[in-house]
Amino acid sequence: MASQSNRKITLKSRPDGYPKLSDFELIEEPIPQPGEGEVLIQSIWLSLDPYMRGRMREGGTYAPSMELGDVMIGSAIGRIVESRTSLFSVGEIVDGAIGWQEYGVSDGSNLRRVDPSLGPLSTALGILGMTGMTAYFGFLHVCDPKPGDTVVVSAASGAVGQVVGQIAKIMGCYVVGTAGSQDKIDYIINELGFDAGINYRNEDVAQAIAAACPLGIDVYFDNVGGPVTDAVMENLADFARIAICGQISQYNLAEPELGPRNIRNLNIHKARMEGFLVFQFADRHEEGRQRIARWIKEGKMKYKEDVVEGIENAPAAFIGMLRGENFGKLLVKMSEE
Amino acid sequence: MASQSNRKITLKSRPDGYPKLSDFELIEEPIPQPGEGEVLIQSIWLSLDPYMRGRMREGGTYAPSMELGDVMIGSAIGRIVESRTSLFSVGEIVDGAIGWQEYGVSDGSNLRRVDPSLGPLSTALGILGMTGMTAYFGFLHVCDPKPGDTVVVSAASGAVGQVVGQIAKIMGCYVVGTAGSQDKIDYIINELGFDAGINYRNEDVAQAIAAACPLGIDVYFDNVGGPVTDAVMENLADFARIAICGQISQYNLAEPELGPRNIRNLNIHKARMEGFLVFQFADRHEEGRQRIARWIKEGKMKYKEDVVEGIENAPAAFIGMLRGENFGKLLVKMSEE
Repeated sequence: MASQSNRKITLKSRPDGYPKLSDFELIEEPIPQPGEGEVLIQSIWLSLDPYMRGRMREGGTYAPSMELGDVMIGSAIGRIVESRTSLFSVGEIVDGAIGWQEYGVSDGSNLRRVDPSLGPLSTALGILGMTGMTAYFGFLHVCDPKPGDTVVVSAASGAVGQVVGQIAKIMGCYVVGTAGSQDKIDYIINELGFDAGINYRNEDVAQAIAAACPLGIDVYFDNVGGPVTDAVMENLADFARIAICGQISQYNLAEPELGPRNIRNLNIHKARMEGFLVFQFADRHEEGRQRIARWIKEGKMKYKEDVVEGIENAPAAFIGMLRGENFGKLLVKMSEE
Repeated sequence: MASQSNRKITLKSRPDGYPKLSDFELIEEPIPQPGEGEVLIQSIWLSLDPYMRGRMREGGTYAPSMELGDVMIGSAIGRIVESRTSLFSVGEIVDGAIGWQEYGVSDGSNLRRVDPSLGPLSTALGILGMTGMTAYFGFLHVCDPKPGDTVVVSAASGAVGQVVGQIAKIMGCYVVGTAGSQDKIDYIINELGFDAGINYRNEDVAQAIAAACPLGIDVYFDNVGGPVTDAVMENLADFARIAICGQISQYNLAEPELGPRNIRNLNIHKARMEGFLVFQFADRHEEGRQRIARWIKEGKMKYKEDVVEGIENAPAAFIGMLRGENFGKLLVKMSEE
């Protein structure tokens, strides 16, 4: 089952605008050997996420940039296949930042044991992992939602957006999602129970958001930025709360984009806009994980994964995600469970 | 002393861009007579404030717009000269929204008794009035400042900015102000004790702010918006807090201005941007008023007023303020105290 070599994807060149396949390099090398106190992990599932784009640029953001030649950073779920530490045993399943490669070595300090009873292993990277925790804490803690709030979620069918919208529905909010295809809109309304959906690619977003939110927007969970966010800013309710989770529409621009100056709306509506990172809530992730796992078991929450097979297909899938082509949480299946 | 007629300024036409003198009309009419239950107030001091510009446009903001022909709205300190209610006696000094006119009638519901022992009457409109309370609550409650914070204040010599900067100094912050002339910069540094000042009219604001705030900006109290705010957004410290008090650079534009999309900085720095209005803290204004009055008496706080004489000069002074030509809290002296 396991290959006899380790295949990995490295950063070959820094993208100018959207990444190209030639910005990545597939390298095959011997499987690394764990030293004393280390473990060898075979990757099963690799998570592909928008934040990785930021780490490809020079200068870093909230974390250092990758250097050219580095393995692409990323979290994976894998199995301990060799252990030279008493901390982990062969066969255990862990979540670790081993990057885009089939095998990784770790001293255990950055590994989290995965509880397989909570759900399928892949969910430990998605709805029960970083993206689920981002949704749970970003929405419930940063947005301070109240039942009856009008909630807008951008990238609503994405890994984070689908969870935000479902939590909002569970707690009695009116939920409007934006997404980039009719399939996605149908999904969030018919499968996830959103009240309305707006296809930002073929609707006048400003008009559609105003029409969908006649009482104004109390909460906006923003994954995209750009014109969708502009439209929200013109339709805020008093005391609105905006969580800035991501700004994917801006990540692949060679030059910063111009947009209307609209901060004044925060003043007029006594509204708050707040950026956050999921790590801020690290000491409480277990709470969110257990709550979401319960909702899934109770049938109150669904999730959608978009699975690609094989490390060699990760770059194209990642580029597609940055263009909004994924449908649900994007994962690379690296080996059999 | 009192004139035998009431002179008032009305809104003649809605400004397109910066207001012009011809947008205002000076009307002379008989002094109004208070009805049963009402008082007649003779204005002593009239406050001119940027928010008035918003009320001149069509469609309103957080409050309804003025209609053409309406007396320009505004707060004044005046003396009760006739009373047909038991609530107020002739001779009492009140703060009331009687607008840009020499005499106003009120049923008392919108009047606040002024305590002359707290300071000169004019201060009831400035540092001990709406602008002082805006500074006190906007800074201390919205910005959540900590000693040692790097604090940037825009329009730092203005009615609100000068108070924000001085409170920040009292509590041990490092304070940088922006203003539009060397006189104003000299004033905030030499008289008010700011640590640094940046003249946005003749310095590269982005470079100057980065240089003045090497540890990043923890708190930004924004009165202006535009390029000063852009520069701050590129120099945020982690967990920065931004209070949006005003956006005067944007109030006189016929079309919304474009600026760089920079919300992503809130995400990277887990930062918060929040708009507020002074009315939100109305139930606590007395606390702020007494605290600031004490600081003034203790010599810990100064204030600067920019006084114009006579209602007929209010329109030009107001237009000048929107262009940043005032130096300190702008007041019109309407009659002798």
